[in-house]
Amino acid sequence: MDIIKVIQDKSKAGEEYFKLLKERQGKENVEVIKIVEDIIEKVKKDGDRALIEYTNNFDKVLLKNIEVTKEEIKEAYSKVEDEFIEALKTAKENIKEYHSKQVQDSYILTKDNGIVMGRTVRGLDRVGIYVPGGTAAYPSSVLMNAVPAKVAGVNEIVMTTPPSFDGTINPNILVAADLAGVDKIYKIGGAQAVAALAFGTETIDKVDKIVGPGNIFVAMAKKSVYGFVDIDMIAGPSEILVISDETGNPKFIAADLMSQAEHDVLASSIFVTTSRELADKVIKEIKLQVEDLSRKEIILKSLKDYGAVILVEDLNRAIEIGNVLAPEHLEIITRNPFEYLNDIKNAGSIFLGSYSPEPLGDYMAGPNHVLPTSGTARFSSPLSVDDFVKKSSYLYYSEKALKNVNSKVIKIAETEGLTAHANSIKVRFN
Amino acid sequence: MDIIKVIQDKSKAGEEYFKLLKERQGKENVEVIKIVEDIIEKVKKDGDRALIEYTNNFDKVLLKNIEVTKEEIKEAYSKVEDEFIEALKTAKENIKEYHSKQVQDSYILTKDNGIVMGRTVRGLDRVGIYVPGGTAAYPSSVLMNAVPAKVAGVNEIVMTTPPSFDGTINPNILVAADLAGVDKIYKIGGAQAVAALAFGTETIDKVDKIVGPGNIFVAMAKKSVYGFVDIDMIAGPSEILVISDETGNPKFIAADLMSQAEHDVLASSIFVTTSRELADKVIKEIKLQVEDLSRKEIILKSLKDYGAVILVEDLNRAIEIGNVLAPEHLEIITRNPFEYLNDIKNAGSIFLGSYSPEPLGDYMAGPNHVLPTSGTARFSSPLSVDDFVKKSSYLYYSEKALKNVNSKVIKIAETEGLTAHANSIKVRFN
Repeated sequence: MDIIKVIQDKSKAGEEYFKLLKERQGKENVEVIKIVEDIIEKVKKDGDRALIEYTNNFDKVLLKNIEVTKEEIKEAYSKVEDEFIEALKTAKENIKEYHSKQVQDSYILTKDNGIVMGRTVRGLDRVGIYVPGGTAAYPSSVLMNAVPAKVAGVNEIVMTTPPSFDGTINPNILVAADLAGVDKIYKIGGAQAVAALAFGTETIDKVDKIVGPGNIFVAMAKKSVYGFVDIDMIAGPSEILVISDETGNPKFIAADLMSQAEHDVLASSIFVTTSRELADKVIKEIKLQVEDLSRKEIILKSLKDYGAVILVEDLNRAIEIGNVLAPEHLEIITRNPFEYLNDIKNAGSIFLGSYSPEPLGDYMAGPNHVLPTSGTARFSSPLSVDDFVKKSSYLYYSEKALKNVNSKVIKIAETEGLTAHANSIKVRFN
Repeated sequence: MDIIKVIQDKSKAGEEYFKLLKERQGKENVEVIKIVEDIIEKVKKDGDRALIEYTNNFDKVLLKNIEVTKEEIKEAYSKVEDEFIEALKTAKENIKEYHSKQVQDSYILTKDNGIVMGRTVRGLDRVGIYVPGGTAAYPSSVLMNAVPAKVAGVNEIVMTTPPSFDGTINPNILVAADLAGVDKIYKIGGAQAVAALAFGTETIDKVDKIVGPGNIFVAMAKKSVYGFVDIDMIAGPSEILVISDETGNPKFIAADLMSQAEHDVLASSIFVTTSRELADKVIKEIKLQVEDLSRKEIILKSLKDYGAVILVEDLNRAIEIGNVLAPEHLEIITRNPFEYLNDIKNAGSIFLGSYSPEPLGDYMAGPNHVLPTSGTARFSSPLSVDDFVKKSSYLYYSEKALKNVNSKVIKIAETEGLTAHANSIKVRFN
């Protein structure tokens, strides 16, 4: 049994593989939707009492305080390694620096006869970040969600995450949240946390937007409250596409493919290369390296089910495949990787050269690791400051300015059959 | 029977009215969802054949050509008044000028040791605009959707709209589309048009994003295909909030409230003022003016059901109400309207002064008329160039640069339990 499919480009097998990737998406679960709707209704009705009850039922904790106290945060710092804190601080500064370039200014346009118009840009008032519990509690995700919100000028950032059996929160998460400038942290998880953020309770003020990953209950709850509040996109299975010519280092490429594969059995790691020889070496390296990795089982299943090595004629075709698949992560490990930057139309995050592996971007460099998955990079973008602002247009015309265009406005209004629109111009000059 | 409710601020009636506004939202219709899903499946399976069949069934037209021909567009010009074309041209130039200020540039950040990173911004490849038929066929909406897409650098803009009984398209719509630079126009409406845009047929290439208003079938179809393609927000009932002190002109205010009310019986027109006297005059003016308006019935029903005059103590409280309701349109008709610009946190579009009525913005001035409705201005923004671009981040580290941070990346990866992530850094320095 092969560890990963090897596919000749433009073959029947290639077509089938592309089709398989498209169908990776999980189906919505009607039972889950029903459960989630009930939870939301109860939280809307009973507020904190419902939160305490659900946390008792699902997390097996009878909460004394819903909000994490200052003392608990202080204690978390004492439990966390200094090197980890230093690493998070460097990451935070890099993320802040990178995202600061995304701030959009309000603008103004002035024209003759006293016309003034433009657009104001403001941070959202209040944002809620959901952080999963257990093994999926990633401090890096806290930074990646909170720092852009902070840069955007969000007034208040709150976080919610399920408690452990003993009623505490993972100290790594608490430290990351504190460093990132999160204002309040709540010990609530699941659909009940999403409901509380969307509609508010006695303790938790409702927010304007909910971001962050979660299990199927959290995802369905976010979908359900969308419209009352904004949400980030609901992430599908993720993927990496590595493109290389014969100059690629097989050790590095094998390692990078596996770093994606370890996330999830639905994750997809794809290697597209012009070199059959390199392909063979990469497969050999995977077999070697996987033995020492703690998530070996997940990696092997993910590579077997959704991974592939695709052999192409030239790098232009490799880029073309990239544009069709629109991968979340795209590594270009070629002689002159920058040469392809203009040709890459669809990708969440692009990693150029041999020393820019995906984990560098996941944790440290500055670009966001919340990225459009499952081919949605065709129309979606990495999480950014843009996601935490709202805009308003504004318009001022003087009497003279309006008079100059009044017949044109009336003409369009009447053509559209909207006579009250036309009337609103007419009454001003009768 | 009063023509519109008059409510004292902070009264029980005020509370009830705010609650009523929140509940204006229409319920989703399960039957419609089922019908729409069937249509989508059939279009996916049968392509053009399904489109022809549905158009025959629903629009009572046996189409000879799905795509509008050059001759049909030429003919449309001959059917349209010159003054209308001139008005559209002025509107288009104003919209283009206003939206050009929204173009975001790609950026780059360079750091020591050869680090390069940044973000590229590109127009979407292909966008589809849905335009309703019948009395809701608004040429101004064609401009408001197509021009920002054009400014964003979208490669191809297509439009789809249901044909009339004789197989033609409203010439005003065709002319607007042609002026706006729409590349292709299809004579298909309803859920079948949305399905064709999302998944493609022999004649219609699939798009990356679908925008534009539509009836319940179109809205549900957009919701259903969301994820395969992007969509704009599904608009709820719309509203105007006019704020005035005693200096407001009652004629103007009455006319502006009715220009919103004529859209829809669910539309909401709200007048908030510090002056009881002005309130009375506005109501008198509504009664006078409404008699001459063609959509009188809709206006009266909308004002009665969802309109209100709210009497407040001072303008600060009026602005506060504005921020709570987060109206789609906000007119500030006061002595010094610009003074309040900083205090308005939540509004789609803001109209300042006595000569900037909503219809000026709907048709002519430049800002977009596609706006967040039903209080979503708390977290959503007017349609803009931002809605027609996608972004990718890119990252390059040299060997030396990666070496400098390698222990920190490994520390975070291992803390998160992702050993394959750590491995991808380690293999590069073993």
